[in-house]
Amino acid sequence: MRVLAKNIIEEAKKNPDAEIEAYGWVHRVRDMGGVNFIILRDRTGLTQLVLSEKPDLTLESVIRVKGNPVLNEKAPGGAELRVKTLEVINRANPDLPFQVNGDVSKVGLESILDNRTLSLRNPKIRSIFKVQATIVEAFSAYLRGQDFTEFKSSKLVGGATEGGSSLFEVEYFDRKMCLAQSPQAYKQTMVVVGLERVFEVGPVYRAEKHETSRHLTEYVSLDVEMGFIESELDLIELERGLLGYVFQQVNEKNAEDLAAWGAAVPTPESVAAAPIISYEEALRIANDEAARNAGKNKPGKLFDVNPEAERLVCEWAAREKGTELVFVNDFPRKERPFYTYPKDAANTMSFDALFRGLEITTGGRRQDNYEALVGGLPKFGLKAENMEGYLSIFRYGCPPHGGFAIGLERLTQKILGLANVKEACLFPRDRKRIAP
Amino acid sequence: MRVLAKNIIEEAKKNPDAEIEAYGWVHRVRDMGGVNFIILRDRTGLTQLVLSEKPDLTLESVIRVKGNPVLNEKAPGGAELRVKTLEVINRANPDLPFQVNGDVSKVGLESILDNRTLSLRNPKIRSIFKVQATIVEAFSAYLRGQDFTEFKSSKLVGGATEGGSSLFEVEYFDRKMCLAQSPQAYKQTMVVVGLERVFEVGPVYRAEKHETSRHLTEYVSLDVEMGFIESELDLIELERGLLGYVFQQVNEKNAEDLAAWGAAVPTPESVAAAPIISYEEALRIANDEAARNAGKNKPGKLFDVNPEAERLVCEWAAREKGTELVFVNDFPRKERPFYTYPKDAANTMSFDALFRGLEITTGGRRQDNYEALVGGLPKFGLKAENMEGYLSIFRYGCPPHGGFAIGLERLTQKILGLANVKEACLFPRDRKRIAP
Repeated sequence: MRVLAKNIIEEAKKNPDAEIEAYGWVHRVRDMGGVNFIILRDRTGLTQLVLSEKPDLTLESVIRVKGNPVLNEKAPGGAELRVKTLEVINRANPDLPFQVNGDVSKVGLESILDNRTLSLRNPKIRSIFKVQATIVEAFSAYLRGQDFTEFKSSKLVGGATEGGSSLFEVEYFDRKMCLAQSPQAYKQTMVVVGLERVFEVGPVYRAEKHETSRHLTEYVSLDVEMGFIESELDLIELERGLLGYVFQQVNEKNAEDLAAWGAAVPTPESVAAAPIISYEEALRIANDEAARNAGKNKPGKLFDVNPEAERLVCEWAAREKGTELVFVNDFPRKERPFYTYPKDAANTMSFDALFRGLEITTGGRRQDNYEALVGGLPKFGLKAENMEGYLSIFRYGCPPHGGFAIGLERLTQKILGLANVKEACLFPRDRKRIAP
Repeated sequence: MRVLAKNIIEEAKKNPDAEIEAYGWVHRVRDMGGVNFIILRDRTGLTQLVLSEKPDLTLESVIRVKGNPVLNEKAPGGAELRVKTLEVINRANPDLPFQVNGDVSKVGLESILDNRTLSLRNPKIRSIFKVQATIVEAFSAYLRGQDFTEFKSSKLVGGATEGGSSLFEVEYFDRKMCLAQSPQAYKQTMVVVGLERVFEVGPVYRAEKHETSRHLTEYVSLDVEMGFIESELDLIELERGLLGYVFQQVNEKNAEDLAAWGAAVPTPESVAAAPIISYEEALRIANDEAARNAGKNKPGKLFDVNPEAERLVCEWAAREKGTELVFVNDFPRKERPFYTYPKDAANTMSFDALFRGLEITTGGRRQDNYEALVGGLPKFGLKAENMEGYLSIFRYGCPPHGGFAIGLERLTQKILGLANVKEACLFPRDRKRIAP
């Protein structure tokens, strides 16, 4: 019977004379002069194996051992296995290009990504994706609890919803299609056809030419859309509850993973204290903060809420409001897509969520009136005849609605304090990186 | 305060003089001479609205009403709303190209798909996607309960894992990439790097030229991979438990949706009774069954387990074993991809699951030995130098492992008894259909 690393201690307490089996990867080998130790790694953790003979093994080989479980305070997990028989299932090539059991904090990102099939074996690196799995689970569970229905939409679309140019083209038989930048039209469709509250977890694509620590050409979008809202404030309240639940779940299920990165999720108090400030206010705060940092009394020179401003606003919120989360609303018309619902002549019912200095969400109420939607297109240089598919959603009765999207990798990155969003993506893609 | 359709009866029981609000879509309008009825549709069902004045409304318009909830056995849900005020939120264009409140069983598939943003408003059609949401939820929940970790892999890959040609090409900056046919390499990677048990829910792509009732060019694959298995029998047992749980959850959460289609999920007994038969046996059974159907005593003429054979095997299992599910294992080497683990010289440790006449799963144990994998390539016309990425997974210690994938749309189709898999896809893609 196989016993997992985390359960060896229980077996040792029950009966140290019982023979149990353990399988896993050779994480480390130590020769202590007469006594030999192997640290065996499985999905639940590490186990110390004690052998009388020096094993003929390479690091990362997969082995199966039988032996007796014995309590030992100094061993990982508080117990060790005194090995009677050892079988090598698959011997690893000894020429490891990446040190799996080393300190990865000093290894460069390129090396980690180039050697993905080895670097993911490192428990600290793997822990990133355990946290990510919890985020997806908690996101879905929270929304289902609020009567949201999950859906899956096509990623092969005819053209850009947003009228943008950063699209990847696909050779689709004898024509061209594009990879969807977002499920925007589809999630609105699902609300309008009567599901009212929907979410999707799926890939989205942006042909970003620039390589930055914030961008991926393919990422997982946690998309939400909800009917019968009044304004973006309903969406902000939904996201506040949603993020609070995600943080709580990560805290509960990933304590070890958070500890590996020296990270902590925001407290419920921090989430509750997240202020809602207008775009204009955010700009003023960012400029004041920039001036403060420069030790001057004259304002900063930020003209829009760019990445630098996002960092400054979060700096201000941490100091003045004791929170790591900020909602910015009332974005000007020109900063938002054509389908954003107007608040007044100049501004829109839209918002961003900033978390630890980074925008993790964009959202807003959508225009639900067919005539208003069509009438607004020329201002954005768009023509109704090219938008037939999108416009048709609104022709036959439509509730007021809106939604938002959270970037899964960005949220993971910021929870764990990773320097680059690519660290929070299993197999990241950018202009140059196309493998593994 | 908004009250949902399903809760109107409770409000009526509590206090018929209370004024409550309801929002939704105008599903039907009836003038009964002096009394006017509107059937209002929301995400939870239908509500009868009673009005003294004839409303100026079009079908599918979105409205908000206030009124008193009154018990009425004849009304849908057992209560109706006596309307005091009615507000039209968005008036529907009266020229509906699709009758939302009609009997859709006589409407052709093309019309349903061409008018997706209207046909999805039909409660019966919408119910397909409520069942689908439960399948995704139950699939994930069952596997998490068995210690599986969810992951998200890239859909932009360098080439074909299977050496096949049915790939869609993507213009990726100054080079070509492909849309992944399956997350095969990635799910194996996740097992091999030490997560041991993983699953993914994501889109996969097949450039299928043929339009059949079984195929989509883009579908959602429910992928599973597990380490430390002995053979495909471990996988079959996992899938048996998984499908049993999915059926039970659909039965519990989607009783109304099943009823709308006159469908029932297999009983736990039916799932437990699902036989495991070898490929050779399946072929013999299919040929016997074909002969039986033809009323002859000579065998049929099926030479492989093709769609016709799958139907015949399921016909046999229903009659002889009282089950709607059959597992076929021991597929011959030539019927399976190069990475399939051999059982003996001729056959492999692989299987299909057939459900109600259709293959819904393919799976098997994978070759985990680097040398054996490389050595087996020439038989498949493959070269190690072109497979570097895939082969590298196995170079540094690998557990015995295997997995399977369930087609989400096919499972949905067969649960509800839909004639075509496209009915079970929100926005299906085939060679000709690229919108909505």
